[in-house]
Amino acid sequence: MTRENVRIGLFGYGCVGQGLHDVLNSSKGFKADIVKICVKDRNKKRRISMDHFTYDKNDILNDPSINLVVELIDDADEAFSIVTTAIKSGKNVVSANKMMIAKHFKELVDLQAKYKVSMLYEASAGASIPIIRNLEEYYDNELLYSLRGILNGTTNYILTKMHNDGLPYADALREAQEKGFAESDPTLDVDGWDAKFKLCIITGHAYGLFLNPEEVFHYGISRISKFDIQYAKEKGFKIKLVPYVGKTSDNTITSFVLPRFISSDKYLYNVDNEYNGVITEAAFADKQFFSGKGAGGHATGSAVLSDISANSYGYRYEYKKFQQGTVSNYTRDHKLEVYLRYSDEKHRELFGFEEVSEYFSGRFYKYVIGIINLKNLYALREQLRDLDVFIVNTGRKL
Amino acid sequence: MTRENVRIGLFGYGCVGQGLHDVLNSSKGFKADIVKICVKDRNKKRRISMDHFTYDKNDILNDPSINLVVELIDDADEAFSIVTTAIKSGKNVVSANKMMIAKHFKELVDLQAKYKVSMLYEASAGASIPIIRNLEEYYDNELLYSLRGILNGTTNYILTKMHNDGLPYADALREAQEKGFAESDPTLDVDGWDAKFKLCIITGHAYGLFLNPEEVFHYGISRISKFDIQYAKEKGFKIKLVPYVGKTSDNTITSFVLPRFISSDKYLYNVDNEYNGVITEAAFADKQFFSGKGAGGHATGSAVLSDISANSYGYRYEYKKFQQGTVSNYTRDHKLEVYLRYSDEKHRELFGFEEVSEYFSGRFYKYVIGIINLKNLYALREQLRDLDVFIVNTGRKL
Repeated sequence: MTRENVRIGLFGYGCVGQGLHDVLNSSKGFKADIVKICVKDRNKKRRISMDHFTYDKNDILNDPSINLVVELIDDADEAFSIVTTAIKSGKNVVSANKMMIAKHFKELVDLQAKYKVSMLYEASAGASIPIIRNLEEYYDNELLYSLRGILNGTTNYILTKMHNDGLPYADALREAQEKGFAESDPTLDVDGWDAKFKLCIITGHAYGLFLNPEEVFHYGISRISKFDIQYAKEKGFKIKLVPYVGKTSDNTITSFVLPRFISSDKYLYNVDNEYNGVITEAAFADKQFFSGKGAGGHATGSAVLSDISANSYGYRYEYKKFQQGTVSNYTRDHKLEVYLRYSDEKHRELFGFEEVSEYFSGRFYKYVIGIINLKNLYALREQLRDLDVFIVNTGRKL
Repeated sequence: MTRENVRIGLFGYGCVGQGLHDVLNSSKGFKADIVKICVKDRNKKRRISMDHFTYDKNDILNDPSINLVVELIDDADEAFSIVTTAIKSGKNVVSANKMMIAKHFKELVDLQAKYKVSMLYEASAGASIPIIRNLEEYYDNELLYSLRGILNGTTNYILTKMHNDGLPYADALREAQEKGFAESDPTLDVDGWDAKFKLCIITGHAYGLFLNPEEVFHYGISRISKFDIQYAKEKGFKIKLVPYVGKTSDNTITSFVLPRFISSDKYLYNVDNEYNGVITEAAFADKQFFSGKGAGGHATGSAVLSDISANSYGYRYEYKKFQQGTVSNYTRDHKLEVYLRYSDEKHRELFGFEEVSEYFSGRFYKYVIGIINLKNLYALREQLRDLDVFIVNTGRKL
C-alpha cells in the first residue's frame, strides 16, 4: 500500500464512522477513498447516498482492491470476526473497539506478526489523545513508574454534572446519553468496564503485559450518592473515575479501576465533562500530563484518521515493551487507602480494613477511611454490585 | 545501523550530557555505547574516568565505527559545524540545540535528504514533552488552528517565584540559575530568544514553514515589575511567557512570543516552575494539552535517549507538513489586545493603539489595554529593549 492508494472498507457508520467521514472530507494533507461502508440496519436513514453502503461484510472482506479495513462497530464479537478475517486476507486494520482488543489482545498481536499486517487502534483508548503511540514510541526506554488518568468520557461527564451543577446521578447519566457520549450499553461505562478495557490496552503498550480483563479489578460510579459528592466537596476534592497501572517492583505491576479523590492542585481536577487526561510518572522524564477530548465523533474520528494516515506510511506497533519483556508478573496483592461509604456494618466487615484513620457515623450514612488490600476487593467483585456502598481511592501514597 | 550496534559519539558533558548518561545507564530496554565524549574544558573535573573523553572533535567525526553523533553543547556555531560534518559523513545525529536548529532549519532538512541520514531533536523544544513527534506523526492530517504554550523553563520558574513567593525579578533569576535551569547566557531565556527558537522548530513541524527566527517577533520578561505581577494577581491571572503560532487564513500563519495573562481555569495556569505545557487547537480533535518538565538534565536526557532509541529503529522526520505545502505564507499583519505598562506618554504613542478599552494612571505607573498590530511591535523591536515598559498579551479573541 502506498500513500496514493489507500482504499478503505469501513464497518459501521455511527457517531465515530460519520465523524471519520467528516474529518476525511476536510483533510487537506491526505486523501483516502472509502470504497464501501458496511452497516447492519437497512431501515436507518443515512446522510449520504445509499450507493456507498452494503449489508454484506463479504463485499468488503472479499474485495481485493480494498487494502485497509476500518472497524467502527459496537458489537465486539462481530468486530473480532471481521478484524481477524481481514488480517488473514492480508488487509491492514484500524479499529476503535476497546472491548474487542482488550479481550483478544495477545491473539491480535500474534495474528499481526503471522500475517505481516498492521493493526492500529489509537482511538480505542483516550480517543483524541495519542497515548498508545507515545507509550510505544516515546516511553520506549523510560522507567515508567505508573500511569493513571481519566479514560471514560461518559462517567467524567456524569461526575462533572453532579459536582458542578448538583445533578442527581440518574439525570446526569441521561444527559450524557443525550449528548451521545455513552456507549450503547451504559453499564459498560458507568460500571467501569470501558475504562478497564482501555487500561488493559494501555498496559500492553506501557509494560508489555497482555492481561485478561477478567484478572483486573474494576469498580464504577453507578453506586455514587449525593453524600459522596458532598463529602468530596467539603474536603476540596472532585471524584473522578481513575484507572491505574503501576510497578510494585522491577518486574511486577498491578492495576485497577476505582473512583479517586482529586484535589484542586492536580491536573486531573480540571479535566471535566467529556475530556480525558492521562498522567505518566517515570524515572527521568518525571511527571507528564496529556489531555484532550475523550468522546465524540469528530475527536475520535480524528484519531482514527491519524491511524489511517500512519498506516499508509507503513507504521506498525512493534510492541517494544513486550519484546523487551522486563515486566513479567501481575499482582493484586497491593494495599490501597480507600474511603468506603456504607450503611450496614456487616458490609464494612467484608472489606478487611487493616488500618482505619477516619470513621464517621451519621443519620444518613457512615463512612470509613482506611487501608485495604486490592486482592480483597477483587474477591468481593461479584458481591459489590449488590451492596449499598461506594468506594473511592484516596490516592494517598502508602 | 541495527538496534544492536548503536555506537555514540557524544559532544558536551554538561547538565544534559550527564543526564543522558544517567538515563542510559538505567535503561533496561535499550543499550547504546557511548564510545567517546568530546569536551572543551581540559581542567574541569569529570565524574567518570578520563579515558572516555577527548578534546579533538575529529576523534569522533573521523571514527567510522561511530554511527550516531549526539550533540549537546552550548555553542550554536560550533554545533552546526559538528552536525553538518557528521551528516556529510553519513552519521545520524541527535541534537538538543534549538538555536542551531532554528537558525539553519531548512539547510538541515535539505542536508538530511541529500545525505540520506536522520537528524532527531525532540529535546530541543519542550524538553521531555514529545511535541515534535506528535506534530509530525499524529497531527499529520489535523486542521491545526493554533499552538501555544510555555516552552522556557527558566522564565517560567522566575515568573512562578515572583507570583507565588513575591520574589523580585533579580532574586528569582538568580535562583533559577542556581537550580541549573538557565541557559549559559540568561538573556537568551529572559528576553524570549530561547522560546522563539523552539517556536520556530515547532512551526516547521506544525505547518511546514521554516522561518528565519529574525522574522518572528519576540519579547521576554526582563522588563517585568512588581506592578505587573500585582495587576495580574488583582485580576486573578498569572503572567506566563507564551509563544504562539496559528493560522490567520487557510494558507497563512502568524507567530510571536509575548507574555500572556492566564486565568485560573486554564491549563497553563497550573504549569509552574520548570514545567512546560503546550496547547493545540484543531478542527476535529479540538483542544489538547501536553505538559511535562521543560528543563533539567534528566528530563531532557530522557528525551534525547528517546531520539537515540527511535533512531535505532530507523525513525526519521518526514517533514510531512512541508511536503504537503498547504501553508505557504507568513504574516505579521495581525491584531492583538495587549496590556502596556509604561510611565512616559511618548512611549505609549509609539505603539499605535487602535482601540483602548482600559486606561489607568497612578503614582507609580500607568497602563493601557487596547488593540495593536503585531507589525508595529516588530518595527519597534530594537527600541523596546531600552524602554521602561512591559507588554502582556491579554489573549482575548478578536
